[in-house]
Amino acid sequence: MAKEKKVQQITDMDVDFAQWFTDVVTKAELIDYAGVKGFFILRPYAFAIWENIQSILDKRFKDLGHENVSMPVLIPESLLQKEKDHVEGFAPEVAWVTHGGSEELSERLCVRPTSETLFCDHWSHVLRSWRDLPMLYNQWCSVVRWEKTTRPFLRGREFHWQEGHTLHATREEAEFETQQMLNVYADFCENSLAMPVIKGQKTEKEKFAGAVATYTVECMMHDKKALQGGTSHYFGDGFARAFNIQFTDKDNKLAYPHQTSWGMSTRIIGGIIMTHGDNSGLVLPPKIAPIQVMVIPIAMHKEGVLEKAAELVSRLKVAGIRVKSDVSDQSPGWKFAEYEMKGIPLRIEIGPKDIEAGQCMAVRRDNGEKIPVSLDSLEKRIPELLEEVHQGLYLKAKKNLTENTRPAKTVEEVKSIIAEKGGFVKTMWCRDLECEMKMKEQAGVTSRCMPFEQETIADTCVCCGKPADTMVIWGVAY
Amino acid sequence: MAKEKKVQQITDMDVDFAQWFTDVVTKAELIDYAGVKGFFILRPYAFAIWENIQSILDKRFKDLGHENVSMPVLIPESLLQKEKDHVEGFAPEVAWVTHGGSEELSERLCVRPTSETLFCDHWSHVLRSWRDLPMLYNQWCSVVRWEKTTRPFLRGREFHWQEGHTLHATREEAEFETQQMLNVYADFCENSLAMPVIKGQKTEKEKFAGAVATYTVECMMHDKKALQGGTSHYFGDGFARAFNIQFTDKDNKLAYPHQTSWGMSTRIIGGIIMTHGDNSGLVLPPKIAPIQVMVIPIAMHKEGVLEKAAELVSRLKVAGIRVKSDVSDQSPGWKFAEYEMKGIPLRIEIGPKDIEAGQCMAVRRDNGEKIPVSLDSLEKRIPELLEEVHQGLYLKAKKNLTENTRPAKTVEEVKSIIAEKGGFVKTMWCRDLECEMKMKEQAGVTSRCMPFEQETIADTCVCCGKPADTMVIWGVAY
Repeated sequence: MAKEKKVQQITDMDVDFAQWFTDVVTKAELIDYAGVKGFFILRPYAFAIWENIQSILDKRFKDLGHENVSMPVLIPESLLQKEKDHVEGFAPEVAWVTHGGSEELSERLCVRPTSETLFCDHWSHVLRSWRDLPMLYNQWCSVVRWEKTTRPFLRGREFHWQEGHTLHATREEAEFETQQMLNVYADFCENSLAMPVIKGQKTEKEKFAGAVATYTVECMMHDKKALQGGTSHYFGDGFARAFNIQFTDKDNKLAYPHQTSWGMSTRIIGGIIMTHGDNSGLVLPPKIAPIQVMVIPIAMHKEGVLEKAAELVSRLKVAGIRVKSDVSDQSPGWKFAEYEMKGIPLRIEIGPKDIEAGQCMAVRRDNGEKIPVSLDSLEKRIPELLEEVHQGLYLKAKKNLTENTRPAKTVEEVKSIIAEKGGFVKTMWCRDLECEMKMKEQAGVTSRCMPFEQETIADTCVCCGKPADTMVIWGVAY
Repeated sequence: MAKEKKVQQITDMDVDFAQWFTDVVTKAELIDYAGVKGFFILRPYAFAIWENIQSILDKRFKDLGHENVSMPVLIPESLLQKEKDHVEGFAPEVAWVTHGGSEELSERLCVRPTSETLFCDHWSHVLRSWRDLPMLYNQWCSVVRWEKTTRPFLRGREFHWQEGHTLHATREEAEFETQQMLNVYADFCENSLAMPVIKGQKTEKEKFAGAVATYTVECMMHDKKALQGGTSHYFGDGFARAFNIQFTDKDNKLAYPHQTSWGMSTRIIGGIIMTHGDNSGLVLPPKIAPIQVMVIPIAMHKEGVLEKAAELVSRLKVAGIRVKSDVSDQSPGWKFAEYEMKGIPLRIEIGPKDIEAGQCMAVRRDNGEKIPVSLDSLEKRIPELLEEVHQGLYLKAKKNLTENTRPAKTVEEVKSIIAEKGGFVKTMWCRDLECEMKMKEQAGVTSRCMPFEQETIADTCVCCGKPADTMVIWGVAY
């Protein structure tokens, strides 16, 4: 559309963060609203981000021996009901298929909200012996959950994700897998998305429906609210018993296998936006940015400028950088604003004076810094600068997380921290559900996790005052 | 399971081709039957084949400027109904969602059978000017069609596919795109799947619901029946008018864009199986085989054998070959049968005598030929042999297609060819629907396509005897 486009205006993030978010996802051309409430179209730019996320995670899963499979999109009601806790968690929020063509079905089918029951049904057909174990499966797909309140990326009635499902001969192996995959998510968030995380275990109240234990990586957004980055569940043999999945062990006895599942979804794109974005729009971490470098020629009509811009693009492509140039007839100022909105990590400006000086100007999206880069060292400097952008984003987010995680000893203290400053509060907790519920009622927070890295804030529960040796992180969550 | 497994027995393909097919998809561990009729689980080996298909096609689509997007899995009934021919074609075979959670929906939603209506709805929101065109979109997803008779890969109530959807400023551009994508499919079938195709146009009766013209690549299976490999549709501006998609053209006037869509599905895996498979099981074309080479050590307990096998694997991996070895305690004979069943293009046997002679033995899956390969030339010879397997498969399939496509001048002649020999019959046709229907009634064949490479079989229609200048290929189709 070029000429017709205006420089985009978005709401100030510190005035109205929710509206800022909506402006960014629309104006950076990430999503469009579909005809049905709560369903979002992922436009090319958003889907390219998801493809980069997929490509990194998929390789890591496969390097650890996982294989991709495809389970059906529909689950018979009777199958969903086989595991009691699971059906209680999911049945209230599924979409039901009742008719095929013009016929009413004899049994309702739900559009999968998650696929544990399908994997279990399959395993009950194919598992025979300890030699078949472990079964390390993963599926990339979309799932449907009939949410009441919906927002792009953060809560949709349909979202994309990967769901890993594994089966192991022993409890130890399954627990190892659960931790291993949590570590993959933590490492991915920090090293690919520049999002620092707190690793920990969910409380009984917050764990996945049907799990023995749920582990999580929790992230803090710019507005200091929490977002769950990814979760990993250990199921014990509960599903195996419910679905009658058995194998002949090494001693030739029948045994139930132990199970895990773990998932990360397009929700993480919402997390990227809310962690790194600013008042000029999106800010993308270089490792998943569809375009890492945008080359913008200055004074394009001057001899040699377009040729030099094309040369830079071609050299950077060869160096493995995802690079584009904009040679449209828009002004440089318009282009700067447009690619800031799109969150492209580095902009390269190249004009007659730069060419004369044998350099180009690199501009970092994260802090606006302008860095002259000698054309001789282009292939060396640009990857370095991308790494610096990554580090810059990570450190800024880490600072936000660290400075806004505060200890407290009483509910009153939690209440006033949340009201005045927001962020996370760490307190001791006696592990009673009642106290967890009170924190919600009185301070408006939910438990994010019991971090692996425990500290001793006090000797007693923040709520009831009984002896307590578990530290919990509390916060307001997306 | 190793020790417990038996060498697999399958039905003779020339005795009962349908049962042979079922045996192969089960025993090569491609699919499992899900709880709901017509839904199939793609097990790791099948999904790995699909991933290889995806990876080749996706790269070609992107090289031609297409971008991936994600549209919702559910379509409101009112949206599906916007284009008259389209809804007539699809409404009878969709699955309807009527409830979300415990609430009845105010409007039924169908699980997408194809996504034209969703793309059109989106375009009606975002298209503004000729500068936005073309829009070159693609989506990888699964779709649901409530088929009565179902078979793994060939006809499922759910199947995976890609659906490309594009929007163009002019008729010429859209028609070019339609042909270009058909050529991508033809080239992919022939050069990646070793499946020769006949390119042509579908008749009015056989075209896609809502299309102006549908083009197809038709393949012949081992049993001489037809399978549609991929289709590409030109829509004109019919959908654009129905969905009110308009843009401002270069003369500043409002205009309707021209549209295409094109798709290839997991059905093609059924095509691969039925084109190349034999009585020992699956035979995979090397370019999409998850494992291209299986190294099998002979007399494993002898000194140096396992080490040498590992060395071969490692050298071939470095050379870019997808290679594995089986060092389990099964007998070599069991392993030969197992990997023949799985259709692995090349087997490498390496034992003490081979090592002494500085060679290994390569065995081609397609024809059983044993070729001694000097270890010095491993990285050169193995890729050559894989290419020879590809060529061997292609030529065999091409011979089947050529020898079993016969001309005919009368319906009687068609009838007797189909009854006695099967295969394709080429005849002239007057383009009347009535004659096309008669061919179905009297000879049991449907029109596969009007090939781009026309011949003059006669001057008159095979059916009514009126003057005719269009040659049609007829056959019995999957």
